[in-house]
Amino acid sequence: MRILGIDPGLRRTGFGVIEAHGMRLSYVASGTIVVPAGEPLAQRLKVILDNLREVVASTRPDVSALEKVFVNTNPTSTLLLGQARGAALCALADSELLVHEYTALQIKKAVVGNGHAAKEQVQKMVQHLLALDGLPAADSADALACAICHAHAGPLAQRLQRAGGTAAHRSRLRGGRLV
Amino acid sequence: MRILGIDPGLRRTGFGVIEAHGMRLSYVASGTIVVPAGEPLAQRLKVILDNLREVVASTRPDVSALEKVFVNTNPTSTLLLGQARGAALCALADSELLVHEYTALQIKKAVVGNGHAAKEQVQKMVQHLLALDGLPAADSADALACAICHAHAGPLAQRLQRAGGTAAHRSRLRGGRLV
Repeated sequence: MRILGIDPGLRRTGFGVIEAHGMRLSYVASGTIVVPAGEPLAQRLKVILDNLREVVASTRPDVSALEKVFVNTNPTSTLLLGQARGAALCALADSELLVHEYTALQIKKAVVGNGHAAKEQVQKMVQHLLALDGLPAADSADALACAICHAHAGPLAQRLQRAGGTAAHRSRLRGGRLV
Repeated sequence: MRILGIDPGLRRTGFGVIEAHGMRLSYVASGTIVVPAGEPLAQRLKVILDNLREVVASTRPDVSALEKVFVNTNPTSTLLLGQARGAALCALADSELLVHEYTALQIKKAVVGNGHAAKEQVQKMVQHLLALDGLPAADSADALACAICHAHAGPLAQRLQRAGGTAAHRSRLRGGRLV
């Protein structure tokens, strides 16, 4: 199973792709989409949309994983992050990829074993788990950590689904309704 | 000039298309995209994305106008609205439409003449200005009001642009940068 992890943000959106064969993980690709700051909002969101579509087209993941957002106390930041996240989700849904969401706590727990681990610990564990030569950049590391979290959660989710115990994000696309 | 106005929301997204010839306005189309509530977030955003793309393809507007968001004190609502707004902006940018943004105050002032007008007054003035047979539904009325606001602001913005005085949302799409 090939998993695309994404760490969305309006200025920088990290992505990371890994392969998971049972518990064996391997690195495929990662990077950061750097969004030009001076552009109007719609164009900045389109940069995220277009680049993520390109990442999906070139790496062909089977599934995607996103960090559930920490809602900031600053409403303007929350709105901006929401819009970036909306663009990332549009790119995934447009590519007909299933999206799974995990909290920062779940991701850190899955990768480091401690839900309150520091950013550097996450980077180091991602490097270790994927046998990378160097420390991954912060945005890529977060995206790869999210993919690793899904690789660990995946088998459990599959067992639960077989048992009928989960309403995971697997429902068919529906068209909505125009009134 | 054909203007598409949008009032984005995760449950209901209103849209309205008008034609403006100088100060003369005429109605083209309007409606509400009703997003199925039970679906996962990515699929709900895709409903907004797909339906707005369809609206653009079928009505062929020259430009679009969106209400600037009132940032709610509830961060969860703000995040959800941000994501819906992100999907709407993606649909517009994907269709290579220019996006203009106006505050609720500007829209109400342009349509009713009073920045603090009630919702019903906006609906009535939209009906009057576009010579509609019936009162438009609330979401459609807000979207049409946004389009009307741009029709009124448009000539001024054009004069300012000719004078070099505006940095409106007209810049060329740029590709961002992958690192």
